Amino acid sequence: MDATLLPFFQPAGIAVIGASHDPVKLGFGVARNLTQSGYRGAIHLVNPRGGDLMGRSAYRSVADIPDPVDLAVIVVPAAVVPDALRACGGRGIRAAIIASGGFREVGDEGAALEAEVARIARELSIRLIGPNCIGLLDTHLPLDTTFLAPPPPVPGDVAFISHSGAICAAVIDWATGQGFGLSRLVSLGNQTDVSETDVLAPVAADEHTRVLTLYLEGVRAGRRFIEQAGLVTRTKPVVALKVGRFAAGQRAVASHTGALAGQEAAYNAAFQRAGVIRAETNEEMFDWARALAWCPLPRRRDIAVLTNAGGPGVVAADAVEALGLPLAALSEATVARMRAVLPAAASVQNPVDMLASAGPHEYGECLSALLADEAGGAVMVIMPPPPTHSAESVCTAMAPIIRGSAKPVVVALMGESLVRRASEVLRAARIPDYRVPERAASALATLVRRAAFLAAPAAEAVEFTDVRAADVRAVLDAAPAGFLPQEDVARVLGAYGIDLPRIALASTPDDAVAVASQLGFPVALKVASPDIPHKSDVGGVLLGLGDADAVRAGFATVQANARRAHPQARLDGVHVQRMLPEGQEVIVGAVQDPQFGALVMFGAGGTEVEGVKDVAFALAPLPRTEADAMIDGTWAGRKLRGFRNVPPADRAAAMDALLRLGQLVAEHPDIAEVEINPLRVRPAGEGVVAVDVRLRVHRR
Amino acid sequence: MDATLLPFFQPAGIAVIGASHDPVKLGFGVARNLTQSGYRGAIHLVNPRGGDLMGRSAYRSVADIPDPVDLAVIVVPAAVVPDALRACGGRGIRAAIIASGGFREVGDEGAALEAEVARIARELSIRLIGPNCIGLLDTHLPLDTTFLAPPPPVPGDVAFISHSGAICAAVIDWATGQGFGLSRLVSLGNQTDVSETDVLAPVAADEHTRVLTLYLEGVRAGRRFIEQAGLVTRTKPVVALKVGRFAAGQRAVASHTGALAGQEAAYNAAFQRAGVIRAETNEEMFDWARALAWCPLPRRRDIAVLTNAGGPGVVAADAVEALGLPLAALSEATVARMRAVLPAAASVQNPVDMLASAGPHEYGECLSALLADEAGGAVMVIMPPPPTHSAESVCTAMAPIIRGSAKPVVVALMGESLVRRASEVLRAARIPDYRVPERAASALATLVRRAAFLAAPAAEAVEFTDVRAADVRAVLDAAPAGFLPQEDVARVLGAYGIDLPRIALASTPDDAVAVASQLGFPVALKVASPDIPHKSDVGGVLLGLGDADAVRAGFATVQANARRAHPQARLDGVHVQRMLPEGQEVIVGAVQDPQFGALVMFGAGGTEVEGVKDVAFALAPLPRTEADAMIDGTWAGRKLRGFRNVPPADRAAAMDALLRLGQLVAEHPDIAEVEINPLRVRPAGEGVVAVDVRLRVHRR
Repeated sequence: MDATLLPFFQPAGIAVIGASHDPVKLGFGVARNLTQSGYRGAIHLVNPRGGDLMGRSAYRSVADIPDPVDLAVIVVPAAVVPDALRACGGRGIRAAIIASGGFREVGDEGAALEAEVARIARELSIRLIGPNCIGLLDTHLPLDTTFLAPPPPVPGDVAFISHSGAICAAVIDWATGQGFGLSRLVSLGNQTDVSETDVLAPVAADEHTRVLTLYLEGVRAGRRFIEQAGLVTRTKPVVALKVGRFAAGQRAVASHTGALAGQEAAYNAAFQRAGVIRAETNEEMFDWARALAWCPLPRRRDIAVLTNAGGPGVVAADAVEALGLPLAALSEATVARMRAVLPAAASVQNPVDMLASAGPHEYGECLSALLADEAGGAVMVIMPPPPTHSAESVCTAMAPIIRGSAKPVVVALMGESLVRRASEVLRAARIPDYRVPERAASALATLVRRAAFLAAPAAEAVEFTDVRAADVRAVLDAAPAGFLPQEDVARVLGAYGIDLPRIALASTPDDAVAVASQLGFPVALKVASPDIPHKSDVGGVLLGLGDADAVRAGFATVQANARRAHPQARLDGVHVQRMLPEGQEVIVGAVQDPQFGALVMFGAGGTEVEGVKDVAFALAPLPRTEADAMIDGTWAGRKLRGFRNVPPADRAAAMDALLRLGQLVAEHPDIAEVEINPLRVRPAGEGVVAVDVRLRVHRR
Repeated sequence: MDATLLPFFQPAGIAVIGASHDPVKLGFGVARNLTQSGYRGAIHLVNPRGGDLMGRSAYRSVADIPDPVDLAVIVVPAAVVPDALRACGGRGIRAAIIASGGFREVGDEGAALEAEVARIARELSIRLIGPNCIGLLDTHLPLDTTFLAPPPPVPGDVAFISHSGAICAAVIDWATGQGFGLSRLVSLGNQTDVSETDVLAPVAADEHTRVLTLYLEGVRAGRRFIEQAGLVTRTKPVVALKVGRFAAGQRAVASHTGALAGQEAAYNAAFQRAGVIRAETNEEMFDWARALAWCPLPRRRDIAVLTNAGGPGVVAADAVEALGLPLAALSEATVARMRAVLPAAASVQNPVDMLASAGPHEYGECLSALLADEAGGAVMVIMPPPPTHSAESVCTAMAPIIRGSAKPVVVALMGESLVRRASEVLRAARIPDYRVPERAASALATLVRRAAFLAAPAAEAVEFTDVRAADVRAVLDAAPAGFLPQEDVARVLGAYGIDLPRIALASTPDDAVAVASQLGFPVALKVASPDIPHKSDVGGVLLGLGDADAVRAGFATVQANARRAHPQARLDGVHVQRMLPEGQEVIVGAVQDPQFGALVMFGAGGTEVEGVKDVAFALAPLPRTEADAMIDGTWAGRKLRGFRNVPPADRAAAMDALLRLGQLVAEHPDIAEVEINPLRVRPAGEGVVAVDVRLRVHRR
């Protein structure tokens, strides 16, 4: 952990610069919250007019502050923040939270001011959180540097790291309302220095934090985020809500891969790689966080459902199966044990419907039976307002059983006022409750996912050692920006073990005939031009030419078609290639994502890639497990295992090409895009053929 | 409206048969709720021991009940329900709610008892709701025949019709907790007589009901449901949660269409046809119902977002755009008006971020500006707990503005305890509030959808009059169950205006050569066998045979391949067909759905239909608007308009084939499945070719 960040999380003394008497000022809120937080270190309130503040006498300047002091909270107007920061430096303070707004978020002038602040901080070796943030909160230390209106969050085990201050206020209030506490809260504001990536390790190191939740508007240093988050997720779950998905501008792209590889694909791939669980909504994030914080992890994927009514049981079964989880097949012993306490008309198969008469005894007995069963990795208990017993009495009976179990149990308490006290009983016992079975099922699915993640060994990216990076470097260094000529493409891919079929350039019809005779008929002709991207679209490709006459005529046709479609294009003649053997066709491509670097795509190839959208993404270089999941994540990939009368194809060779292309692009960031489309996958054992490849080099 | 159902909804007098002194019995709850409900008609409590009940003297038998009485609520044990029903008949009561359980839901014996009850009811002309139900509730009449624990729902404008009793209890409690009232609630139980379809019109006729919500576990008379629901949705919105999607068994199917046309596809098509809005979860259903009940409908699809913080604004913009709605482009006037009241750093473009200092004045002024703008069909207001003002004061300022506007406004009050009083202010003014922007956006999208539905004229199914139904009838009547021979298939489809290419059966190689010479080379050969469904999979199809020798050799190949793959199959020779012109290939199919009848499918054809899953469904016969939406709902269909170098195809002819096939199957329910795969769609103006067609007739 970065020692320079320690003062933020374990400060010995805190100076509030801009502490105010005026209740409408943020400097009042910070002083109030800090002094009332129970913080056990030294608190120094600074106000140029001095006087009494919150029952303490205020210092007139930072220089006057006695030891200990190692953290400043700055809430003065933006214009005087540079002075405040210099004062901190002079007093030996090396960490500051700048709560004040008025920086980059308000325009160019503010941005200039923020740059000045950043410069001063660097010069004085001061680490900064903010500006324009809510600050920090630790319910266990305790510590509260925010200016938020009370009540503060109750102590708990969910940490929240946020790019938005306003969301912090809402999250604290949601947490209190939903009965869970927070451990730490970090509002990052404009992140002129400290980012979400920087605070991951310090927050995860907190013994009280069992789950980290993140509200992200974007990540700047993508690979570092993955590395840091990946370390954290091996020990503590991280759930992230990434917003702003529609805000990103369109990029200029020339390949199918580039057209489909949007920011969202990159974030999904990054979270996947790092083991971060991505939530789609705020509600999901905290529904999941509660379950992750409070429940043991399931040892199996199947779910048992216990209910007192048929309808909610059907809703739960739907929700469980929609999430891809099987319903548990209960053992004879479990069925017999439940039958002994239930009326004859009860349904003792999963979902177990005990009928409306079920009370504390029946819920307790049946739940115990389900927890004792080998089957069922987790249990969902459902309770609509029970007609004869109170939900509270049922939950009181179940709570110790659930706490004593190694299986996770979540409860769908359906209702509001009639289940309020029951909910309090569960929350006090740290048992997650939800108002509807759908959300309870979603929480269970997250537990299953987390268990699967921890069970899988951390996957290492495949690194081929038979590659010739220097050869690629030489080609790229000599190349201008733009699409590489085919000969260079063949050299680059060949250096990484992806061989292109032999191809020769012919500049005249006679040349073409000579080359074709040498390669062997039948051949394909393709117009050679750096200016025509989609050659088959313009009639620039002819296939299966069987003799010299056909080649001669074909040369003329291809040139004429290309000339007609692109009168300005430079035509270098035609490429001649022996006709290639048959196979299943897929696309394998890669682009450089601005945040995360090399991003590979696999899926259904051809000309309709963007229409069919049967593709999957991952970050490169990639582990074999991810390549496997990508291939099986698409229909084109699943089909490689064979389909009806289509024989199994050489899936291993396709995966090899995917891994190698990924390594190539990861190791050469100046390759902007590369795409094999189609990659023809021959029958098993016969390899792949990169039928058509395009590679674009970045402008440098 | 069915007059026999009137006593359920406007009873002059109600008898409670099985009213009880014992608080743990349901008969106590019914008597309590009914007497406390404020019901203004006559209440007659019946208990064989007589005595005082709820401050009234109980009747010892049904026969003793004085006038008026036209509805019975029966809560006696199942075994004596038949007697109770006969007593009702004797007393002239023609409507009964049987709350008692112990019927079909408990097994065969109960099912027999239920059948007896149904028979008695039919004989005595008694309409039944139940058995095994919660009963009826009308908060305005008022009336409460349920036995549910208090409190009852508050009066409101959302009606709830349910197949599950337990869900009713939860819904009442949710409604109270979420601050909306119910108008009517109908629990249908086992539906031995009255179904969800029967009560749609009576419930919709209620002047207090503005929205109908349905919890459905299935619909038995599918077409009648569509008809009744379709009538209701022209005047009042209907939102349905259909559960049990994974409960349905697999059907035996032989076509791609049959394999993909599951129960869910049929329900989606039915809801689409009827204008019923399908919710995926309980929360969605009531989130949407509140907005539909309380808000005017938007006149445009674009959304304005008003917030006091950037983060929630981004969340809202994401959610709005994820639902396919555009963000409104605000006018100059609106921007100027907002700028006048906001700090310089505020963002006055949509989403409008007023900054954290915004209070009642800023929210009120900016909201008024947005409501006055021509742009923006609806407004979402977002309020995280405001740092300086109370959410309540802001909502108090906004409520009259919102109530006075013709645009819908929903509010995302982010938080729990800090926004509770603000929420109460909004609910009292019938303004929907949600805890997160995502759910507020979802409600707005539903309003937009409802507005679009009402704006579109009710679409009439296309009926072609140039069809020869009698010809089809003759073929089908003569056919055994199973697949029709190709000649009959051609006759059936031809009678509905879908011509198959000329095809001739040849039983010997010489025959095949003769036929091919007559049709013209090149030809295709296809093995003729009623026992081989997927002929190309077994090498039973050869294409592009150019001369007599090729045909002679091909005949042998095809026969040998078929024999090897299906040694038991009957081989009738080969079908010879002239090679067909090129075109885009789609699949058009239809099956009979058990609930809803003719269900048509359109999409990507070929052999990989189930893998690619690029298909759309609708019920037949279908209006042109739905056929249009089906085609554009698939990539294969969108591609018909042309794609890169693929010229526009004859989309109109493809739609014609889809409509005609739908009409065929709708008019002939004994066609179990029919599938054109591929339907080759020629360039615009050149029509379609039904390359391969299979048609299976039901066992009769």
